[in-house]
Amino acid sequence: MNRPVTIALDASGGDFGPSVVVPAALDVLRKHADIQLILVGDETAICGELGERRDARLQVRHATQRVEMNESPAQALRKKKDSSMRVVIDLVKSGDADACVSAGNTGALMATARYVLKTLPGIDRPAIVTRIPAIDGHTHMLDLGANVDCTAEHLYQFAVMGSELVAVVTGDPRPRVGLLNIGEEDIKGNEKVKEAGQLLESSDLNYIGYVEGDDIYTDAVDVVVTDGFVGNVSLKTSEGVAKMITHYLRESFSRNALTRIVGLIAKPVLRRFRGLFDPRRYNGATLVGLQGIVIKSHGSADVFAFANAVEIGIVEVAKDLPKRIHKRLEQQFLARKTA
Amino acid sequence: MNRPVTIALDASGGDFGPSVVVPAALDVLRKHADIQLILVGDETAICGELGERRDARLQVRHATQRVEMNESPAQALRKKKDSSMRVVIDLVKSGDADACVSAGNTGALMATARYVLKTLPGIDRPAIVTRIPAIDGHTHMLDLGANVDCTAEHLYQFAVMGSELVAVVTGDPRPRVGLLNIGEEDIKGNEKVKEAGQLLESSDLNYIGYVEGDDIYTDAVDVVVTDGFVGNVSLKTSEGVAKMITHYLRESFSRNALTRIVGLIAKPVLRRFRGLFDPRRYNGATLVGLQGIVIKSHGSADVFAFANAVEIGIVEVAKDLPKRIHKRLEQQFLARKTA
Repeated sequence: MNRPVTIALDASGGDFGPSVVVPAALDVLRKHADIQLILVGDETAICGELGERRDARLQVRHATQRVEMNESPAQALRKKKDSSMRVVIDLVKSGDADACVSAGNTGALMATARYVLKTLPGIDRPAIVTRIPAIDGHTHMLDLGANVDCTAEHLYQFAVMGSELVAVVTGDPRPRVGLLNIGEEDIKGNEKVKEAGQLLESSDLNYIGYVEGDDIYTDAVDVVVTDGFVGNVSLKTSEGVAKMITHYLRESFSRNALTRIVGLIAKPVLRRFRGLFDPRRYNGATLVGLQGIVIKSHGSADVFAFANAVEIGIVEVAKDLPKRIHKRLEQQFLARKTA
Repeated sequence: MNRPVTIALDASGGDFGPSVVVPAALDVLRKHADIQLILVGDETAICGELGERRDARLQVRHATQRVEMNESPAQALRKKKDSSMRVVIDLVKSGDADACVSAGNTGALMATARYVLKTLPGIDRPAIVTRIPAIDGHTHMLDLGANVDCTAEHLYQFAVMGSELVAVVTGDPRPRVGLLNIGEEDIKGNEKVKEAGQLLESSDLNYIGYVEGDDIYTDAVDVVVTDGFVGNVSLKTSEGVAKMITHYLRESFSRNALTRIVGLIAKPVLRRFRGLFDPRRYNGATLVGLQGIVIKSHGSADVFAFANAVEIGIVEVAKDLPKRIHKRLEQQFLARKTA
């Protein structure tokens, strides 16, 4: 590559569009001297946000359309060929960008990325993976909603992709992979999970067996593998619990004059505490299994959160994630053939 | 009934057996002047725990066997016919007890209860349901692990049972019922969930449509319906998140001398806060859909938590829960026939 690492940003995606994406882009440029960004979307809106804050490493690329948050993936794919979402993916396909980031509609993003970039050889379905805070560390979980009905083989592929992604991100060459299951003695999970467990046992991954929902938030496992329905419910449930707990924490300190004073005294401690699992710090999910790097930001991401999603893209470009997953898959298939 | 309400307690179940069940039983008797209890298990161990603390409303019934926590349900059913778990269920069957409570192996408890008591007419499979803390209220969720692979019809039956249970417990005649689903636009859940949604739309339940994982912890829904795999993962995930958050809260206040002083000042506020979603307060899950009342306590329950599980049994006896669910089912079937 002769040009610097270039990330294309969907400036029209998400709940806030350019008002979040533009300042986040400027923050990223300030932090990384060696990065270029392409802002894709409504040129007038983007330039309006930019104002005088131009940067030679920031290009603006006009797109005439926008994928709506509730638009069907099929419709987005068919009718929005000049949407900001489609153009950022096209830029990755053409090699003009090394990765793209969008806060738009997840279903449309996945469908478009899959159509334009294609999956890696050996991958039936891409998956969505994100980092999750845990006691004394982090966990990555996949799939988070791209694949509702999976086979055991799909779960196995998710495990390979997740393992390689975590190896790339953390530097640990053998992250611990667990299959999400339930512990009831009579059932021990459904047939699909059992079958996936057998595939993983005969793989060369660092497979540690079944894990349960509470293990996600401990240091027991690095990669949690499940289907998109269960993964999505688990992630959303976690958000719900965290919201409830912080709601009651705030409420406990604002019950009366005395508790409010105590709250003032405890404020710095509580602020640091909330920062530890601030969802904005964990914003940015990777669509793995594609021939290209696509990062999904939360639709409601603010500037700080969106910039974090861009950072994930930068790391994955630096480590050449798709190529590494591809290599790992080839090794796996050789290992399975000779097994 | 000529005798007072009688609850049979499996004194050998759970991690702690009589050392938890016996003091919990005495606490319940102190609180309820009109209740009788039967402690079932190893007579010597129970009497050793009781010591001088006898009560005329407390009978002891010897059982020669104990179902182990890792024992298969089939084995428990076949080989443990005089286990404390089996005897408490037999006492419900014979009418000598109105309900039973066990902290033993969930799979064995469900299999034994189903075999001895049978399901209510119209119910294919019993389910496990429990109360969950939420912002400004509570939610009930089912199934929590009894049924890994469910059909749409099973989910529909869970909805009927859950709705009636919540009506009984809260007094709200039309609790809001939601189907747990995921929000990705292209998929909107799997086929089974869609089909169950159609069944619920044509029912006379207060069905509010799909809910997502984060809705469980809000005031948006009263009864969350899902299959046992997803429900179990969701519940365990919640436990994991809560543990992680309380871990970091403790850690934040013990970082240095200053934060420890702040922690001392904030202690009463933090103690009350933690009490709000203390899992011990929520101990006790109902096995619904049986011709009898069976309550499952957490295996690691302490005295306070086990007593809470017994309280749930007392409420369900007072409201004659199985009969009410049976009636409701009959109405549903009539409604569906005439629809």
